[in-house]
Amino acid sequence: MRIRVVNPNTTRAMTETIEQCARAVVGPGTLLDAVTAETGPASIESHYDEAMSVPGLLAAIGRGEAEGVDGYVIACFGDPGLDAARELAAGPVIGIAEAAMHTASHLGRGFSVVTTLGRTIGRAADLAQRYGMRRFCRGIHACELQVLDLHTDPRARKIVTEACREAVQADGSDAVVLGCAGMADLCADIRDEIGVPVIDGVAAATLTVQSLLTLGLRKSGTGEFATPPPKTYLGLPGPLRS
Amino acid sequence: MRIRVVNPNTTRAMTETIEQCARAVVGPGTLLDAVTAETGPASIESHYDEAMSVPGLLAAIGRGEAEGVDGYVIACFGDPGLDAARELAAGPVIGIAEAAMHTASHLGRGFSVVTTLGRTIGRAADLAQRYGMRRFCRGIHACELQVLDLHTDPRARKIVTEACREAVQADGSDAVVLGCAGMADLCADIRDEIGVPVIDGVAAATLTVQSLLTLGLRKSGTGEFATPPPKTYLGLPGPLRS
Amino acid sequence: MRIRVVNPNTTRAMTETIEQCARAVVGPGTLLDAVTAETGPASIESHYDEAMSVPGLLAAIGRGEAEGVDGYVIACFGDPGLDAARELAAGPVIGIAEAAMHTASHLGRGFSVVTTLGRTIGRAADLAQRYGMRRFCRGIHACELQVLDLHTDPRARKIVTEACREAVQADGSDAVVLGCAGMADLCADIRDEIGVPVIDGVAAATLTVQSLLTLGLRKSGTGEFATPPPKTYLGLPGPLRS
Amino acid sequence: MRIRVVNPNTTRAMTETIEQCARAVVGPGTLLDAVTAETGPASIESHYDEAMSVPGLLAAIGRGEAEGVDGYVIACFGDPGLDAARELAAGPVIGIAEAAMHTASHLGRGFSVVTTLGRTIGRAADLAQRYGMRRFCRGIHACELQVLDLHTDPRARKIVTEACREAVQADGSDAVVLGCAGMADLCADIRDEIGVPVIDGVAAATLTVQSLLTLGLRKSGTGEFATPPPKTYLGLPGPLRS
Amino acid sequence: MRIRVVNPNTTRAMTETIEQCARAVVGPGTLLDAVTAETGPASIESHYDEAMSVPGLLAAIGRGEAEGVDGYVIACFGDPGLDAARELAAGPVIGIAEAAMHTASHLGRGFSVVTTLGRTIGRAADLAQRYGMRRFCRGIHACELQVLDLHTDPRARKIVTEACREAVQADGSDAVVLGCAGMADLCADIRDEIGVPVIDGVAAATLTVQSLLTLGLRKSGTGEFATPPPKTYLGLPGPLRS
Amino acid sequence: MRIRVVNPNTTRAMTETIEQCARAVVGPGTLLDAVTAETGPASIESHYDEAMSVPGLLAAIGRGEAEGVDGYVIACFGDPGLDAARELAAGPVIGIAEAAMHTASHLGRGFSVVTTLGRTIGRAADLAQRYGMRRFCRGIHACELQVLDLHTDPRARKIVTEACREAVQADGSDAVVLGCAGMADLCADIRDEIGVPVIDGVAAATLTVQSLLTLGLRKSGTGEFATPPPKTYLGLPGPLRS
Repeated sequence: MRIRVVNPNTTRAMTETIEQCARAVVGPGTLLDAVTAETGPASIESHYDEAMSVPGLLAAIGRGEAEGVDGYVIACFGDPGLDAARELAAGPVIGIAEAAMHTASHLGRGFSVVTTLGRTIGRAADLAQRYGMRRFCRGIHACELQVLDLHTDPRARKIVTEACREAVQADGSDAVVLGCAGMADLCADIRDEIGVPVIDGVAAATLTVQSLLTLGLRKSGTGEFATPPPKTYLGLPGPLRS
Repeated sequence: MRIRVVNPNTTRAMTETIEQCARAVVGPGTLLDAVTAETGPASIESHYDEAMSVPGLLAAIGRGEAEGVDGYVIACFGDPGLDAARELAAGPVIGIAEAAMHTASHLGRGFSVVTTLGRTIGRAADLAQRYGMRRFCRGIHACELQVLDLHTDPRARKIVTEACREAVQADGSDAVVLGCAGMADLCADIRDEIGVPVIDGVAAATLTVQSLLTLGLRKSGTGEFATPPPKTYLGLPGPLRS
Repeated sequence: MRIRVVNPNTTRAMTETIEQCARAVVGPGTLLDAVTAETGPASIESHYDEAMSVPGLLAAIGRGEAEGVDGYVIACFGDPGLDAARELAAGPVIGIAEAAMHTASHLGRGFSVVTTLGRTIGRAADLAQRYGMRRFCRGIHACELQVLDLHTDPRARKIVTEACREAVQADGSDAVVLGCAGMADLCADIRDEIGVPVIDGVAAATLTVQSLLTLGLRKSGTGEFATPPPKTYLGLPGPLRS
Repeated sequence: MRIRVVNPNTTRAMTETIEQCARAVVGPGTLLDAVTAETGPASIESHYDEAMSVPGLLAAIGRGEAEGVDGYVIACFGDPGLDAARELAAGPVIGIAEAAMHTASHLGRGFSVVTTLGRTIGRAADLAQRYGMRRFCRGIHACELQVLDLHTDPRARKIVTEACREAVQADGSDAVVLGCAGMADLCADIRDEIGVPVIDGVAAATLTVQSLLTLGLRKSGTGEFATPPPKTYLGLPGPLRS
Repeated sequence: MRIRVVNPNTTRAMTETIEQCARAVVGPGTLLDAVTAETGPASIESHYDEAMSVPGLLAAIGRGEAEGVDGYVIACFGDPGLDAARELAAGPVIGIAEAAMHTASHLGRGFSVVTTLGRTIGRAADLAQRYGMRRFCRGIHACELQVLDLHTDPRARKIVTEACREAVQADGSDAVVLGCAGMADLCADIRDEIGVPVIDGVAAATLTVQSLLTLGLRKSGTGEFATPPPKTYLGLPGPLRS
Repeated sequence: MRIRVVNPNTTRAMTETIEQCARAVVGPGTLLDAVTAETGPASIESHYDEAMSVPGLLAAIGRGEAEGVDGYVIACFGDPGLDAARELAAGPVIGIAEAAMHTASHLGRGFSVVTTLGRTIGRAADLAQRYGMRRFCRGIHACELQVLDLHTDPRARKIVTEACREAVQADGSDAVVLGCAGMADLCADIRDEIGVPVIDGVAAATLTVQSLLTLGLRKSGTGEFATPPPKTYLGLPGPLRS
C-alpha cells in the first residue's frame, strides 16, 4: 500500500516536516513518502497562491499515478485542487482540511479552527460548508503568522498555542483543528498544553487514505470524477495524457 | 490497542458475522473483539427497539471501561445510545452509520443508503442530518427485509444487491452505504456485482476508531460529554457507578 | 378525554409539582393525572440519564395504553423516548421542549432557552433543530443549578429569574422558554418579574395534547410510527407485548 | 375569553362555514365569533388578492381591539397581514397555515399540503419556510379548484379528497394539511375517506389561540411587534389611531 | 426604455431625493421618473406601515402599466408588495433591498445592513433569507433614527456614518448596505468617510431593472406571477381591472 | 469605462461569439473587448480542465490591470478562478454563472440550468450553493453535448432547445439559465422557441460589471480579497508581481 503526501507549495523544508508527521501514524504495511510541488508559490496564503499551486499539485498526482501510488494526501489546509485530483487519481485523494474536520466531528459537538493569516478564514469557512461540517465548526481564528514564519519565528509555538487556547474559550468548543500543514509538528505539544484534543490534518488525512485503501474503496469509474476527457492544453507544464 | 465492537441487539449469530468483518480490517497491533448486548431486542427495527437496546449497550460499554478497552464501535445503523456511550467511555465511540456516511462522503458527490424496513428510513435521515451528511445523502431506500432474515432468507443477497443497484440509478449517486450491521458480510459481493463503491459501516467504524486511537485523540474531560454525574438509578440492570 | 403526564425521572415530589401545573390549564372535560417512572435516574442531567430514563417512560406509556389513556406529555425538557413513545401510543404524545418551542414561536421572532446545567445545552440545541425551531431559538443558556436543587435551594428562584433576564438581554429575544420540567412552577413569577412572556413546557404540552384530541387527530396506522413489530426482548422490565 | 376569527376575504358565506368549524372545537369558557373583512377581494388566489385583503383584515383587528377581543385567527391559508396584525393586537394572532403546519408536525415525520390553484403553491412554500416547517412539509399540491367553487361545484369534495389521497401517496407523508379556509368543513370527511390525519387550519388556529390565552401569553410590549408608532395615513379606510 | 421608481410612502420630498439618485445612474437611452404613492403612511417603519403602503404602491404600478412603463423600482427597503407588483406588471419589478443585497454579494464575502429603527431589523432579515442572501448578510444594525428625521435632523449624516463604521467593525464585513431609501443621498459621502463600499438600493435597483430590460427579460406569462384572475374588490381605491 | 471579457479556454472562435454577445448589451459609454486565455485547455468540461484554465485566466487579468481595464467577466460557467481574480483586480470581476443565477432569481420563484456534459452538473450545483441561489435553482440538466460541438454540430441548437423545454417542464421553473458560455448566441432563439425567459450569463455578467462600475463600487482594500502578498512562484508563466 503506497500513500503519497503532496505538499502543494514549493518549500522543501515544509515537506520534510509533513512527511515525518505522516510517517508517524501509518501502519507497518504502508509505504509513505512526501513530495514537493515543482511549480507554484513558496507558501499558500491567498486564493491566488492556491490557484497557482494547483498545476504543480496535479503534475505530482500525475507522476504518482504513473508510479503506481495508491492514494494521496493534499497537504495544504485549503485543500487545493481536490476535485481535479480526484479525477486524475484512480485511488483516494484526501485534503487535510477535509480529514481534520471530519475527525474533529467525532470528538464532541464542535471544534474551532486556528489558521495563519486572517485572509485565509474565508476559504476554511467554504470548506466547512462543502464537507457538511458547518454545524460542527464553531469558529475560525487567525493567529496572523505567515506560513513560513511557523518554523523560523521563535515565538511561533507560543502564538499558535495561545490562539488555540483562546479559540476554545471563545467558541466553547470540544477540540481544535490546526489550520495549516505547517503546524503539524506542533500538534502534540499544544494538546498537552491546553488539555483539549488538537487535530493535525496531515496525520488525520494520511489515516483516512489508509483506511479507504484497507476498505478497498475507490471512486466509481463513471460520473463526475471519472478520468477527464483528453484534449489539447496549451502552454502548460505536464498536461494530462490519457 | 483494544477495540470492542458492541452489537446492541441480543442475537449472537449476528455478533459473530460482525466480528469477522471488523477483524478483517484492523492493523496487526490492534486487539479486536465483539460482544452481544445482554439485554434488549433480538433485532432493532423500530424506535422502540432502539430505545430498549440502549441499556444493554451502555452496560457493555461500562464493562469495557472496567476491562481497559480503548475504543468502541456501536454496530447498529441507528447508532443507538451514541451520546450516552461517549459520556461513559474515556476513549472514542463511533456508530456505524456515522462512520459509513463520513467514509462515503470522501468518494464522490453523493451516496445512497439501502436499509432493511421502510420504517427505519426516518432514523437514517435524522442521522444524516446530525452528522452534517445531508448534502451527500441523495436517498435512503428500504429493501423491506427484516434484519434477522438477512442471514436466513436465501433470496436476501439478491434482494439487497438489486436494491443497491436501483438506488444508485434512482439517485445518481457515487456510492452505496449499507444500512444495517447485518449486511456487513454482503459488502464485497455487492460491490463486485454493481460496480460502484459499497460501504459497510462495521468495517468503516472499526478503522475510524483505530485511527482516532493512533492519533491519540480522546474527548475533552469537561463539557457535554464528561462522565455523567453519579446519582441513584432505580430498578435498572447495571447502572453506572462513578 | 384522559391525558397523562409522565415524569421520566423517579423523583415523586417533582411529579406532584408537574401535575399541579398541568391541571391548572386543562379544560373542564379533561381528566389529567401525572405518573412517575418506576425505573430510571432521580433526575435527568446527561445523555446517560436520559437514555436510562427511557425504559421507565415507555413502561408508563404501555400501562397508559392498557388503561385507555388518550394522550401523553413527556415531562422532561430532553423529550426522552419521544419517537418510541409515539410508536407505542395510539394517541398523541408531546414532549415539553417540543410544545414550549412551538408555542414560543407564535409570540415573536425569537426565544431564549434557560436550562439547568451547561452540559444539557447540546440536547436542547438538537431538539430545536429537530422541531424546525432553530430559526426561532436565539440562544440556550444554563443557570448551572442541578435539577433537584430547583426546589430545595432557597436561591433557586432568584438564580433562574436572573438567568432569564440576562438571556433576553443577550439574545434580543421576545420570550423565554424554561428548559426543565422542574421550573414549571416558577413560570408566572418570572414573567411578572422580567416582563416578557415565559413559557413552561409542561402546561404548553398539556394544552397541545388536549388540542390534538379535540381535533380528533391521531397518527397514521402505518409507516414509521406504526406499532412496533413484536419480538423477543431479553432481561428488560415491562417489554411491549402486542 | 373572546376569540375572533377574521375572514380576510369579503365572501360572507365562507365566514359562516368558518365560524361553525371554529365553534365546534372551543372550550365552554370561550366566546367565539367570526367576521368578514369589509374591504378586499371576494377570494384570495394571488399575491395581489392577498395584498388587497390586508387593509380590511387590519381594520377588523382594530375594531376587535376596541371591543376587547382577546385573540384572533386569520382565516386564509396565506396568513395575510400576520406581522402587522400582531403589532395591532395586544393578544395572540395566529394564521391558519401557521397553526395547521405546526399541528401536523406533531403527528409524524412529514405532511403534504393540498391547496386550491397552483399559483398559490409558492406562498405556501414561503410560509413553511417562515415557520421552520420546511423539514416537515414534503409537498404542496394544487387541486386547481377556485376558492369560491369549493362550495358550489358539486365535484369539489371528490376532487379535494382525491388530491389529498394522491399527495399522501406521492410524498409518503403522515398527514395532510388543507390549504384553504374554504376546505374547513371537508376535513372530517376526507380523514374518514383516506385514513390518514387531515388538518384544518381554522380549527387548529382557534385552539392555538385558546391555548395561548389559557397560558396567559401575550407578546412583549417592546421590540419588533410593539404597537406601531402613530403617523399620518393618506386616503385609507380605518387607519390606526394610537 | 421607461423605468419608474415608486416611493411607497406619501412623503413627496423623499421621492425627489430618490429620483435624483436613480437618475444619476441610468444610461442615456433610459427615461426615468419617480412617483409618490397616493395613499398610505408618511413613512414605513413597522409591518403595519408596510402593509398599509401596498395598495398605494399597487395603484401606482397599475397606472404605470396603463402608461406603458417598462419596469419599476420599489423604493422602500422592506420591498413592500413585491410579489403582487410582479403579478401586475408585464416587465421587471425590483425592490431596493433585493438589488442592494445582490449587488453587495458581488463585492466580497459579506455585508452589513444599517437600517433606521431597530424594529425594522426583522423585516430585513426576512428579506435576506428570501433572496438567498443570508450567507452574505453578516449583521443588521439600527441607527435608531426615524425615516423622516434622515433629512431634517442635522446629526443624521453623522449618526448613519458612525453606525456604518461600527457595523463593518463588528461584523468584519466587506461592504455596507444602506437599509432605507431615505439614505440614498448619503451613500457617496459615507463611502468616502469609512473607506469600504457602500450600496444604495435605489441606484442598484434602477440599474438592475435597466439591465433586465436590456437583456429583454420578462416574467413567464403563466404560473405564480401571471396576471391575477379578475374578481370583485370591495371598497378599495383603484382595484385592478383586467 | 473599459470592460474585458476573458474566455478562460484557448479556443479563439468561442471568444469571438462571446464578444459579440457581450457587445450587444453594453451602453454607449462602455468600451468592451474579449480576450482568449494564452494557456490552458481548448474547452472546460472537468474539474481538471477548470483548474488548468486558471493560470491563463489570471495572466489575462494581470495584463488587464496593467492596461487599465476597469472590470472583468469570466466567460465560463464554472466561474474558474473567481476568488483569485478578485484579489488581482482592483475593480469588479463577475462570473457568468454568478450573474446568470442572480439575474434569473429576479424573474420568478425558480430557474433551471441546462449545461453541456453531465459531469459538469456538480460544479454548477456548488456554485448555486456558493451564491445563495440554491433555493432558486430547481434543477440542473445536461444536454450531453461537448462544448466545442455547440458550434459545429448541426443538431446542437435543437438539442439545447429541447433540453431547455424539458427542464422547464420537469422543474416547474420560471426561467432557464444557459450553462455554458458557448450557448450565448442561442439565447434569443431558445427564448422565442419555448416562451419562457432564457438567461445567457455572458450578457448578464457584462451588465453586472457595467452596473457595478456605474455605481462606483470596488472591493475593500483590506481583508480576504486584498492584493495577495508578493512571494516567489516557481516555474509558472506570468506570475503576479506586486
